[in-house]
Amino acid sequence: LSSDRFDQGLLSPLAAGHDGLISDEAVLDALVDAELGLVRAWAAVGALPRDEAESIAEAWGRDAPNVAELAERAVAGGNPVIPLVPLLKQKLPQAQRGWVHRGATSQDILDTALMLIARRAVDALLVDLAEVDTVLLAFASHNRDVVAAGRTLAGHAVPTTVGRRAAGWLTGIRRATSRLQSLTLPAQLGGAAGTRASFQELGGSTELPRRFAESLELDDVAEVWHTSRWPVTELGDALTQLTDALGKLAGDVVTLSRTEIAELSTGIGGTSSAMPQKSNPVAAVLLRSAALRAPQLAATLHLCAALADDERPTGAWHAEWPTLRELLRLGLGASAHARELVAALEVDRAAVARNLALTRGLIVAERVSLVLSSLIGPDRVAALVAAAASGGDFAELIGAIPEASGIDVAALVDPAGYTGEAGAAVDRLNGVDAS
Amino acid sequence: LSSDRFDQGLLSPLAAGHDGLISDEAVLDALVDAELGLVRAWAAVGALPRDEAESIAEAWGRDAPNVAELAERAVAGGNPVIPLVPLLKQKLPQAQRGWVHRGATSQDILDTALMLIARRAVDALLVDLAEVDTVLLAFASHNRDVVAAGRTLAGHAVPTTVGRRAAGWLTGIRRATSRLQSLTLPAQLGGAAGTRASFQELGGSTELPRRFAESLELDDVAEVWHTSRWPVTELGDALTQLTDALGKLAGDVVTLSRTEIAELSTGIGGTSSAMPQKSNPVAAVLLRSAALRAPQLAATLHLCAALADDERPTGAWHAEWPTLRELLRLGLGASAHARELVAALEVDRAAVARNLALTRGLIVAERVSLVLSSLIGPDRVAALVAAAASGGDFAELIGAIPEASGIDVAALVDPAGYTGEAGAAVDRLNGVDAS
Amino acid sequence: LSSDRFDQGLLSPLAAGHDGLISDEAVLDALVDAELGLVRAWAAVGALPRDEAESIAEAWGRDAPNVAELAERAVAGGNPVIPLVPLLKQKLPQAQRGWVHRGATSQDILDTALMLIARRAVDALLVDLAEVDTVLLAFASHNRDVVAAGRTLAGHAVPTTVGRRAAGWLTGIRRATSRLQSLTLPAQLGGAAGTRASFQELGGSTELPRRFAESLELDDVAEVWHTSRWPVTELGDALTQLTDALGKLAGDVVTLSRTEIAELSTGIGGTSSAMPQKSNPVAAVLLRSAALRAPQLAATLHLCAALADDERPTGAWHAEWPTLRELLRLGLGASAHARELVAALEVDRAAVARNLALTRGLIVAERVSLVLSSLIGPDRVAALVAAAASGGDFAELIGAIPEASGIDVAALVDPAGYTGEAGAAVDRLNGVDAS
Amino acid sequence: LSSDRFDQGLLSPLAAGHDGLISDEAVLDALVDAELGLVRAWAAVGALPRDEAESIAEAWGRDAPNVAELAERAVAGGNPVIPLVPLLKQKLPQAQRGWVHRGATSQDILDTALMLIARRAVDALLVDLAEVDTVLLAFASHNRDVVAAGRTLAGHAVPTTVGRRAAGWLTGIRRATSRLQSLTLPAQLGGAAGTRASFQELGGSTELPRRFAESLELDDVAEVWHTSRWPVTELGDALTQLTDALGKLAGDVVTLSRTEIAELSTGIGGTSSAMPQKSNPVAAVLLRSAALRAPQLAATLHLCAALADDERPTGAWHAEWPTLRELLRLGLGASAHARELVAALEVDRAAVARNLALTRGLIVAERVSLVLSSLIGPDRVAALVAAAASGGDFAELIGAIPEASGIDVAALVDPAGYTGEAGAAVDRLNGVDAS
Repeated sequence: LSSDRFDQGLLSPLAAGHDGLISDEAVLDALVDAELGLVRAWAAVGALPRDEAESIAEAWGRDAPNVAELAERAVAGGNPVIPLVPLLKQKLPQAQRGWVHRGATSQDILDTALMLIARRAVDALLVDLAEVDTVLLAFASHNRDVVAAGRTLAGHAVPTTVGRRAAGWLTGIRRATSRLQSLTLPAQLGGAAGTRASFQELGGSTELPRRFAESLELDDVAEVWHTSRWPVTELGDALTQLTDALGKLAGDVVTLSRTEIAELSTGIGGTSSAMPQKSNPVAAVLLRSAALRAPQLAATLHLCAALADDERPTGAWHAEWPTLRELLRLGLGASAHARELVAALEVDRAAVARNLALTRGLIVAERVSLVLSSLIGPDRVAALVAAAASGGDFAELIGAIPEASGIDVAALVDPAGYTGEAGAAVDRLNGVDAS
Repeated sequence: LSSDRFDQGLLSPLAAGHDGLISDEAVLDALVDAELGLVRAWAAVGALPRDEAESIAEAWGRDAPNVAELAERAVAGGNPVIPLVPLLKQKLPQAQRGWVHRGATSQDILDTALMLIARRAVDALLVDLAEVDTVLLAFASHNRDVVAAGRTLAGHAVPTTVGRRAAGWLTGIRRATSRLQSLTLPAQLGGAAGTRASFQELGGSTELPRRFAESLELDDVAEVWHTSRWPVTELGDALTQLTDALGKLAGDVVTLSRTEIAELSTGIGGTSSAMPQKSNPVAAVLLRSAALRAPQLAATLHLCAALADDERPTGAWHAEWPTLRELLRLGLGASAHARELVAALEVDRAAVARNLALTRGLIVAERVSLVLSSLIGPDRVAALVAAAASGGDFAELIGAIPEASGIDVAALVDPAGYTGEAGAAVDRLNGVDAS
Repeated sequence: LSSDRFDQGLLSPLAAGHDGLISDEAVLDALVDAELGLVRAWAAVGALPRDEAESIAEAWGRDAPNVAELAERAVAGGNPVIPLVPLLKQKLPQAQRGWVHRGATSQDILDTALMLIARRAVDALLVDLAEVDTVLLAFASHNRDVVAAGRTLAGHAVPTTVGRRAAGWLTGIRRATSRLQSLTLPAQLGGAAGTRASFQELGGSTELPRRFAESLELDDVAEVWHTSRWPVTELGDALTQLTDALGKLAGDVVTLSRTEIAELSTGIGGTSSAMPQKSNPVAAVLLRSAALRAPQLAATLHLCAALADDERPTGAWHAEWPTLRELLRLGLGASAHARELVAALEVDRAAVARNLALTRGLIVAERVSLVLSSLIGPDRVAALVAAAASGGDFAELIGAIPEASGIDVAALVDPAGYTGEAGAAVDRLNGVDAS
Repeated sequence: LSSDRFDQGLLSPLAAGHDGLISDEAVLDALVDAELGLVRAWAAVGALPRDEAESIAEAWGRDAPNVAELAERAVAGGNPVIPLVPLLKQKLPQAQRGWVHRGATSQDILDTALMLIARRAVDALLVDLAEVDTVLLAFASHNRDVVAAGRTLAGHAVPTTVGRRAAGWLTGIRRATSRLQSLTLPAQLGGAAGTRASFQELGGSTELPRRFAESLELDDVAEVWHTSRWPVTELGDALTQLTDALGKLAGDVVTLSRTEIAELSTGIGGTSSAMPQKSNPVAAVLLRSAALRAPQLAATLHLCAALADDERPTGAWHAEWPTLRELLRLGLGASAHARELVAALEVDRAAVARNLALTRGLIVAERVSLVLSSLIGPDRVAALVAAAASGGDFAELIGAIPEASGIDVAALVDPAGYTGEAGAAVDRLNGVDAS
């Protein structure tokens, strides 16, 4: 058994720094934490002396069950809580065993453990995102006025700035961050069919669920969510909103670090096994791989919610566990890689300027069109643009137009004069609102 | 052309009552509304007399462009705004034409139009959901104390109540409703690459975007969201959360209306083309079909957000439009069908009671186990349950246990005595919290 | 009603040329065809005179039911066949009505109609794909020896050829084409629960299903597939394999037509509503939008197959219809756009050469490394590459190495000498295999 | 590191028997196998003495690299091959090191290793499927004539047989099996950009790729599939077709083992942590969980294929690895569980008969309608059915109809007389075709 540790990340090279938060070992810890939270909740409502609860905590803290063994035993009953409960009881004197899993159903413990894992993972990735925010904001501010080609449908369109583009990345990341910060991650304590009858039968007051949530520092929601799975889908949606935002950043970094464009480099490029000259934007590439996978995992969570039949689903519940965990992994890995990526991001301003000049002035064709249309009419504007597109110098061609004699052509075709609110967008992220 | 109206609902028999809100005609109206909103915004910032703006509105209101023709012309440029703008200009005297689409890019108009469509569709479905809430709450209250078999993994588990089950449905629907109510549905006004340079060039004040949003009664967000697509994904997620919640309701209705279970009927069952005796739970079936489709559509929206490259995406933007519209259709259709469904929902209390008795008392085996374990130990409890499962009468077998002589066996095995907080869950939805 | 023709393509600007094959009108035609096929099958097994069957065909051919009206009536029973049958009967004299829908269930007719639609759509798109094959093969052959930069992880890697890249596109398209050509698209005739008891009861011989399939030119499979939905999922998978292959082509076209790369142009670029100088690769962009949407639609079909419960599914069947039709639409639209795209594809050989030279020789660093490593060891090779990467001329630096004095440096660094089997890959597609 | 073995199956309780085939250890073995296959291919084309190749095999066979360490090192370069190559070289004398990874790129090795893993996994699951076939066929044959209620849209429709239903399951499984058996699982040997220039440069004949495939017992396809990913998507589609078919089986088992229906039991039900009387259909539940997850994973593979840009994708390739592996896991686990499930499947014929009688004869209402309509007209048939549905005895009501005096009513309402080709469907699977 120990020789088959299934997945240690060999095929998932997202930064593994946080894997410990969501590994099977971590899940097992969370399952035990949930069982312990229940013992403490019983103590909190006065059914059990607090120090007895703590002696159970101590007994369980000494050595953990073997994960691989538990995983194997989980198959027969379909979940790992069923074999875990007797193992936990065995660690206690006979008299204390009745307090273990008291009134609970497997789903109470497993749902709560997944929320604990989620709480810890989300807290950890928010730390990375705070750092991403700081660094990207500095990056945007530093490059606030670096005029660059804006691209639509793959072609140069109008000018923008490096700072404005970074502000766009940060806007998306901040929105996702706020979704993650405002998540409700509740404990679950409903008993076999969500009525809590077993807890009542055993003398538990109606305070028990709240005490349970408190002891685990999870949210307390009044209603049991056995088959109303919004806490799971809202979590999945928020994680996917994060990989969306980071995927957008990564996609732009990949494009802008292309050999022909070369406006950005990350300095942390991986080496190639065959080509000695290459430096690959690995962090961005791995971020993109996360962003391509997350949406379909989140879709699975929604399907499970829609198919949460009866008082416990026949498969839809089971499909959630590995899916949610993988989404947490993607969220953690993506955040860690994003932190690396933004820290290493470097602008080649010469390349930015070179690209900006590539269309010989046509990058401001929209502006010229806006200015000249009233003077010479749209048809002559079109002819002018066509002439420039065929190789002419745009400024020179404009200068030759009699009606444009009063116009400062050099200023008109200067891309820096046509960046609109690009700077203001950066300023707003810095808390400055000029409007 | 007119003979091929592609999709009129023949293969999508979700209640078609609201289709008019999101049909191609409605999209065209919204596109014109968005263009008009821009004209009015220019007037609002003082660039144009208000009555001139209104004369444009009047000219456009006279007759709408032909949808099929516009759809065909949209292919060449990849979006319908490009051919729409000249059509709208043609309806105006030369002098007014410069105010049309002034400073805007196609994406400004199309994104804004989609948000208008979304605003109208969401408002409409919220009306249906309010009615669903009222009716389901009455249903739950009316059946608050009707004890029923709770089922987990397809088998009878412990008692619950018909009211508690309905309370669970309503909890999920309310959560989804609150997500839909708090959506941000913003106007879009960024110009070709999100810098708003064109508006500035044309003398538009920084107030223009806010005025644009106001004139359309859409939200105003400071940042352009050309390639930061959270308004789209948050909308898709919320709609899917709704079809999840309604799908859960529908799934339970389907199960509980099975011939062998027959606890619920909907009275609105469709007829069969072959079997004269059948009454099918059509509304529930169609709700389920919506719930199976929505998650993958929402996943597409997330992918598009993650792949929103450059200052306008190369395909990811275009993939959003039909996907978002179809999600709106599912949300509208599902809400309308849910309203029908809950209005027709009837409980057969005799069937509920008959099913509850089906395991001859074992539905309260958990309770008996909790009570007797301390008296006779878990092994004898297991033997007792096994004897009952083999056909014995549970109450009789318990009564024969000497240690149980002091127990009121009839009360112990009465399912009505083991419903825990089922009633309280209903009361909480009615605003009564006993805890 | 007639004013709300839901979807006429306004938000789906894929080439609409083939929409008539899969529109609601076409679906209605196919439903009538399926009913007629059944009448003819009864005639083929001798139950009905052939000329009577043809008189029914004639009566139905006169005027079609109204689609929108039928769509509205389809809601109550959950499918359009239920209201269609009485409409078809009304068109016949009383004596003939018994032959309509004889023994059939709604699913027989609807499944068969969808396969008819699929058959017609697949046949049509195969015509476009044959043309794509011809044109791409000519393109690959014409550019067989045009050496170009090969790119991995967004950076220049080693040389390839324009022809080799096109050969890769064609390989994928051919594989998808062969999947589409070998599809099994069967008629469905199972009766209410797949036993065909009704047909037997009515005196139909066991030949009836085969005759039914024959009359509609669909495949005949022995087993009823009411709830074994492989014909649907295999179709969905094959269509998605096609959009995958076309999406790969489109993605490369988008990249290679970027302003900075400019190796390819399509000449069919759409105009912009704001920027007069732009020519957008619209066909490629729309192809990509199809490729981003198809996989999730195919996933829905698989889910429906997995959830095909009982003898007719409770929602999973209904979710298939619009999903399958949309996939057919994407397949048809993508094929038509691909045909346009490849016909317009132009190579700018000067740009290809300019990009190839961009790394000043490092594009052949792998080759140089392979050749020199044995002479000077990997460490000195690395130093050499680093020197070139810092701005040195690669050929000059190599020439200065004493151990390399016997080497023809100009030949060594000529990218044309390091294209391996690129030409052979093109030749193989032309049926020439040199190996 | 060793304490965080990420995923050992704790949250994926599908039968773990085959996990060793696809674990990270197995992936590492396959990577080494692929590198070794390349060494042997060089020997096969005469570049290297065969016994030298075998001495390399021997050196590598002695001890494997540490998986967790390799996984960690894989992050920097984005794939595990980059750090693996130097580790493998270190195990050899200096003179042999040049034969390691000779001419290859990381993708050659990783793609080939994934196909090796797939080959081994598919071979293993086909063994389980053969057993499933044998057992299900026996089950269908044994229950060929057990008449049962056929259900559509959750209600009783017309009779079928237990054997016919099982035949339907087997039909779907056989179709999926044949897809899996006919898969093309090719080796990959293309070099850095798919041109094989490096192999040519190093003196490799054009036979090298074929020899490589042969040495690994993988398929040889002429074309490099670096960015033409049909081998991956066709594998994913076939695996999903399998989980679809097994999911359908599992769904029916879950339904038919419901407390109220109880026609099937699996005897391998899991116990409950709370309810002593329960026996859950765990294998079916876990099968369903696999069937709900697979389609979205397959969708991810298609997206990756569509986004396989340039000569190596920027993220789409990386997203394939964990996704494909998880699909293999689901396929293996589902097959193993299906084997268990069908072996344990038991029919309660009394329950089958009881349910069949539940509608008091209306299960044959379709037949009665077909027979009587010509005698008494559809309106009186409808009234008759309505009377029976209101509680009357169907046979008695029919007997009272004067026009039906010549009819053997007992035979007419006997469900066994209205099963059509149900028996023939079973016979066909046994190779007997009566038609």
